[in-house]
This record gives sequence, structure tokens and C-alpha cells, in this order.
Amino acid sequence: MTAPVDSLPPGFLAALTEYVAIPSDSRSATPETMRAAAEWLAGRLSWAAGRVEETDGFPVVRGEWLGAPGAPTVLVYGHYDVQPTGDLAEWHTAPFELVVDGPVLRGRGVTDDKGPVLLVLAMAEALLAERGGLPLNVKFLLEGEEEIGSPHLPGYVRAHADELAADLVISADGAMWRPGEPSISIASKGLVALDIEVTGAAEDLHSGRYGGTVANPVHALATVLASLHAADGSVAVPGFAEGVAELSPQRRAEIDAVPFDDEEYRVAVGVPELFGEAGYSTLARLWERPTLEVNGITAGGKYTVIPHRAVGHVSCRLVGQQDPERVVAAITAHVTALAVPGVEVAVRADPGWVPAYRIEPDHPAVLAARDALAEVYPGHPVLLAVIAGTLPATTLFESALGAKTLFFSFATADEKHHAPNEFMRISRIGEGMRAWAALWDRLATTTEGTR
Amino acid sequence: MTAPVDSLPPGFLAALTEYVAIPSDSRSATPETMRAAAEWLAGRLSWAAGRVEETDGFPVVRGEWLGAPGAPTVLVYGHYDVQPTGDLAEWHTAPFELVVDGPVLRGRGVTDDKGPVLLVLAMAEALLAERGGLPLNVKFLLEGEEEIGSPHLPGYVRAHADELAADLVISADGAMWRPGEPSISIASKGLVALDIEVTGAAEDLHSGRYGGTVANPVHALATVLASLHAADGSVAVPGFAEGVAELSPQRRAEIDAVPFDDEEYRVAVGVPELFGEAGYSTLARLWERPTLEVNGITAGGKYTVIPHRAVGHVSCRLVGQQDPERVVAAITAHVTALAVPGVEVAVRADPGWVPAYRIEPDHPAVLAARDALAEVYPGHPVLLAVIAGTLPATTLFESALGAKTLFFSFATADEKHHAPNEFMRISRIGEGMRAWAALWDRLATTTEGTR
Repeated sequence: MTAPVDSLPPGFLAALTEYVAIPSDSRSATPETMRAAAEWLAGRLSWAAGRVEETDGFPVVRGEWLGAPGAPTVLVYGHYDVQPTGDLAEWHTAPFELVVDGPVLRGRGVTDDKGPVLLVLAMAEALLAERGGLPLNVKFLLEGEEEIGSPHLPGYVRAHADELAADLVISADGAMWRPGEPSISIASKGLVALDIEVTGAAEDLHSGRYGGTVANPVHALATVLASLHAADGSVAVPGFAEGVAELSPQRRAEIDAVPFDDEEYRVAVGVPELFGEAGYSTLARLWERPTLEVNGITAGGKYTVIPHRAVGHVSCRLVGQQDPERVVAAITAHVTALAVPGVEVAVRADPGWVPAYRIEPDHPAVLAARDALAEVYPGHPVLLAVIAGTLPATTLFESALGAKTLFFSFATADEKHHAPNEFMRISRIGEGMRAWAALWDRLATTTEGTR
Repeated sequence: MTAPVDSLPPGFLAALTEYVAIPSDSRSATPETMRAAAEWLAGRLSWAAGRVEETDGFPVVRGEWLGAPGAPTVLVYGHYDVQPTGDLAEWHTAPFELVVDGPVLRGRGVTDDKGPVLLVLAMAEALLAERGGLPLNVKFLLEGEEEIGSPHLPGYVRAHADELAADLVISADGAMWRPGEPSISIASKGLVALDIEVTGAAEDLHSGRYGGTVANPVHALATVLASLHAADGSVAVPGFAEGVAELSPQRRAEIDAVPFDDEEYRVAVGVPELFGEAGYSTLARLWERPTLEVNGITAGGKYTVIPHRAVGHVSCRLVGQQDPERVVAAITAHVTALAVPGVEVAVRADPGWVPAYRIEPDHPAVLAARDALAEVYPGHPVLLAVIAGTLPATTLFESALGAKTLFFSFATADEKHHAPNEFMRISRIGEGMRAWAALWDRLATTTEGTR
């Protein structure tokens, strides 16, 4: 019997092991570590003049192979940074050690986004070896700040727009929606993150010696956070939903037609029950509705103080025409209007706002992608799905390069992105390589080269 | 000009420097560190057969000088453990390095309770050198788990009740209420601590890919915590206040007669405004009303997840006849009744519950203490105050040894107990030594020796 891992192309496992071992967590790694990851990746792109280029933050990795004159040009986007590990006690394997575990590979970043990027490079190298060339012109832009909202990507892309010019951006970031079927994502949600900070006394106070005389910032923060949602979990901030269109009967019907088993999903996620905005199916909430999630709270600890400071870390996923700036203003106004007594409350937005993004389902690139997936997954209908996560680069590429972005990642959405025990299915790597090759072949003939 | 520090008895500063340098944080120190603090303290008690004795937790330090046959016996209580440092970034000096800063000494534990204990030992040694003996018999019991609720002290004291027998316990723990005047504490609040844990999914979830489909445990915890208090800050848990007597007009009048400046207090604490239960003055709330404070929250962090778990750390300060067990039951029933959807909520009480404690204002020990303070602070009326904090040993000594506890600490309540930048006034050390000597002299003649 052949183990799943034996299906990988020669050298792939060793390369991904090296790559995952570089702990390129863009929230906490040193600039040296981030550069090491970039240098490693540039080394894999030597056939495309791969190189590390400076930005105002962590560097980007660039490269291009332009040996198909007259053919279209695609820009492949991805990222080499990863999320923080979170609580190490919750990991079953060492996060930065690639582990082969039957049908999956385990490790931080293996599916977001190190594996999905590496399979594109492996595919291109294989095509070059096999055919002596690629069917179209390819540029690469692989950044190191995706997980922190790509704060320096806009400046870089605008400054290098001529060099990055392409007919289409193909993102190796994102994820297939489910393991059982091929899908193409035609939209992604926007993102705006902010902190709600409550401040009380000048310093932490002994909870006995001062208790009952001053407001506790943790109580105040709980009051503020509890006011952000209605009982059904929908966002209760006036003005938050400005720009969110009512779901059309047609879109409702489309979503209702997608096979989706609430109970199966509930068990997979491991919650006692599903929960969310009344009047929408689970899938409609996930794909079409904006969210406001408190990602964490920093406040005191398990000792008898009244903390002088409590901070709620919030992120909102946006849809439709929601304007990140107006969302922040709406939350600020709501929190201010609460006028929680005895403390000071401040709302501070993080940089790196991203509006929601959409590509039309009949765009030539989407049609080419459907055909490519149909070839690799015969007998499976190709679903048009939504990435409920955020890809900050998409709207940037549209405005700065005039190019739409096709999401074409072979990660799967259940592979514990951003959580402990991240993994990637080994089978997706070979499938992804075949699909990318088929996509490029199709794009070479169906997309008009303009550059 | 003489610096305040020059007023300290010879060797005192060097000794306290050594003692503070042992980071005996009973929440996180190793058993070896805790033992080192105990051994150090026992070494200072060599004149009283000082020794370290085992308990089921961190050891206690014991000692006795019984050279005054026929005179009463007092048991001196204190502790060698300290609170965690909390966020080191908020300390202006290294917490375990004793720093002389004009009129104060700085360092973790300097005023809670290392300084106030050490001054009693220095006083006794001075008396022995000066007079060749002490006016009464003295036993020592200095524990290492006060800051974690003294979980093993009851078992130890009950098992050694005969050896610890005394006419009166004098606590070197606690604090004078204000720097400007002498005071005796005639009551302390009880304590019960608990965690409210909310659990959602099996693991942290990507806030985009799952947002809107499941309840967020942080939102649920905020809802639970926000429900614990009314708008005025009073505790809104049904049954919580069972055993709390309505404030008598006489006690209200007594408290109103105490000089207390709300604005001065507000500025000292550094809050925008004072806050608390309607219908009570600031001082009445501090001294006579129970509290429920959320000391901290552990939940996720500043990255885009829906945390699978959120925990609120709660402690309640009890008064009157509140029963800790019934308080926990009331909170549990309240939280259960909320029935927050989509998550599981558990209430888990910590061990080490302590009911409130009181000594009558006309108890002979209180009268002796008033006289001793009047001698050291001539012209200052001696206030009868309340320790709004908790001294877990008091009710234990009453039940196990049949002895009341007199609080006689020379810490001051504003000295940042449990907070960053803890300090102790140098002047209190000499004053404390003189007052303890005067107290022992008075107790030797006014308290009947029964042992």
C-alpha cells in the first residue's frame, strides 16, 4: 500500500519542512526571522529571478517568468507570514515542525499559506522541466504581512504598479470551502479591527481595599461588549449595517440549493448548538452577513485586583458596500453613547482596513477555473462559494493594477487556519498542481493578453 | 539633615533587602523559592527557636519565647508570601529589589507583609537586648499561603492547636487605613473566589471562516459578567446579599463622623469619578457593603479568532453573616438561569472560602491597642476602621484556638498592596516597633493569662 505522502512530487516534503520550520509569525517574529522566510522562498523561485525586495515593513518576494510573448500575464499572489501559535498547550505537535500524519501534513502555516504557495512553484518547475516553458507569462508577489492586514502592501504595489502589471491576479491564498467538492470563491469579506479600551484608576487596585468605591474597568468593558450584539447574535450597533443589501430572493435560493448539513457542520466545529442572526440559514449568515467578533480580552488575571485597564480586541467582517471607516465611526458613536460611568472608554482602530470584494461568476477567469477544476475532479459539480475570511490584497489589485483576482487556493477551510493544530490535506497538493497547470493552459487561450 | 532611612534600626534595611529579594509569590513561585523565604524568616527568629514546619502546602514558620510565666500568651500571625507582580512594564523599579526612595521603601511584599512582620521581630530583639526578656509570652505563626486564601492553614492550625494556644492572636498583616492618623481595624471582609468559564467550539476558530455561525464565548462571557451588577454597581445576583444586615442609623452616623474627603480619595486613586451602590457614602460602601469584582478575563487575544474558551476570574468580598457557600450557589443559579445560547457555562469556586470577621470595639485587646497608638501618635484620635480586605486566618483562630485576633499592622492601605509599585513608609517602621512594644506592655497587665 502506498502512503498518501508518497504521492508528493520529489523534494516537496523536504522543502515544505524547511519552510514551515521558519516561524514567520508576522505579529511577533523578529525582522530577521521574517527575512529568513522571504529569502528561503526567493530561493525556490530562482527559475523566475526570485528575489527579496524591501517595503516599509516586512519584505516581499518577487519573481517573473516572461517567456511567452503574446500570451497573457498572470500575477500569482500569496504570503509567507503565518498566524501566532496561540496557546502552545493546545497544540498536539510542535507548531513549527512539519509532521506527516496519515493523509495530512501538520504545522503552523502549512495550509495558510505555505503549502498552497509551494505547490504552485512545484507545478511551474515541473512544467518547465517537461515542456521547456510555461503557457503564459507569470509574475509573483508573495508578501509577509497578510496576517496583520497587509499594512505596507498598498504602498509597495502602487510604487511598483508598472512592474506588477498583469491581466489577472491569481491568489494562492484563500481556501476551498469543503474537502468533499471543488469550489471557486467569488467573494471575500472585508475586515476592520479595533480595540475598545476601558481605563479606570491610575494603577491596579486591591479588590478588597478599594472594592465598592470605584467602577471596575472589566465590568464596564463587559457592559460595552454585551451591548454590541442583539440576543440573536446580530450586530446591534446602529449604522453598522449601512451598505449591506438585503439578501435577494435569487441569492437566497442559490444558497438554499447548496448542499449543507447544519448538524454535520455543528459536530465538526464542536459546538453545543449553532447560533446567529435570526431569519438567515447558517450558510447565508456565513457567506452574506457581516459580523463583529470580540477576538479576545486583555484584563487583569486570577488575582484579587481591580484592574486599571481592560481591552477588548474586536474584528468585523464586512460585506457588500460597508465602508470600514463608517463602521469604526458607528462603533465609536455607539460606545460613546453608552456613557459607562466611572471610567474612560476609547475606541482605537487598527490600520489596514479592507472593504469586501467580489468577482462576477461569469468572469472569463472564473469560467476557466471551473473548467480546470472539472478536469481534476471529474463528476463533481464545481460550487461557487464565498470566502468568509478576508484577502486584503484583492481590492488593492483592482485599484492599483486594474486587475481582478481569482481565488485558487488548495487549502480547505476546515484545516484550522489561525487555530492550534493547523493542517493541510496531502491529496490537495497533487490536485492543486494539476489544477493550476490546467488553469494556466486555459487562461493562455481564453484570456486576452494586453501586455 | 537626616534621611528617613537613617531612622531605621541597625541592620533592618539589609535584612529587609534580603527578604524582599526572595520572590515568594505563592501563585507562581517554585516550592524551593517559597522554602527559601521561610528558611530566611526562621533564621531571623533564632531567639525564639524559629523553625520551618511542613504543611500540606507551602511550609509555615514557627517560633516561641515563653520566658514570662504567669503572663498572657500572644500568637503573632503574618505571612511570608507575596502577590504576583502583574505586568512588569508597569513597575518603575525591579519588584524584588528593595529600593530606598526618600520617605518610602519600594518592592513587592515590602508592605504586604514582609516589612510589617520584620518590624515585630526587630522590636522583640531590641526588647530582649534592652531588658533581657519580653513582658509576655510570644508565639509566632507565619504562613506562606495567605495570598492564595490560606488553603492549608486550617488543617495545620487544627492539628497543632495545643502548641499554638494563646490568649490573643495579633496579626501583623492588614493595614492602617490612612497615612495621616492611627487606626485600629475592628473587622475584615470575607472572601470567596470563583471562575466563570464559557466554552464554545472544540478549538479556536478563524473569525472569518466561521463568524456568524456559532456563538462567540467572549460575547457570552460579556453577557454573563454584565448581568452581575445593576447600573449603580451594586451586585444584581439574587440571594447574593443574604446575611447582609441593613446599615443601622447608629453605624451610619459613626461612619459619617469619620473625616473622609471623597475628592481627595478620587484624586489619590486616579479615577475620573467615584462609583458604587446608590444610597451609601463612599466609606459606607467600602466598610460595610459586599462586593463582587471581576479581577480579570482570560480569552483569546489580538488576532482574528473566535476563542473556544473565555474565563472570568471573580472574587467577592463578604460582610456580616454572608455564607461563602451560599454566595457561590447564588452566583451559579443566576448564571445558569441566564441560559446563554450556543455555549456551555460553568461556575467553579476556588478552595479557601473565608467568612467576614469582627472584634468588638470594647474588647480589652482593642482598648490596649488604642492606648498604645495614642502613646506613639500623641494628639491624634485613634480611629476604629474596617479592613475591606480579607484576613483568612481570623475566623480560623477563633474556631480552632478560641482566640480573637487583633489587627496591628503598620502597613498603610494606600501602599499599593497587590498592585505594581508596592511600597511602605519608612516612618511606620519605627512607629510600629514602639507601638508593638507599648501594646505588649499593656497586654501583659490588662489581659488575663489563661495558659
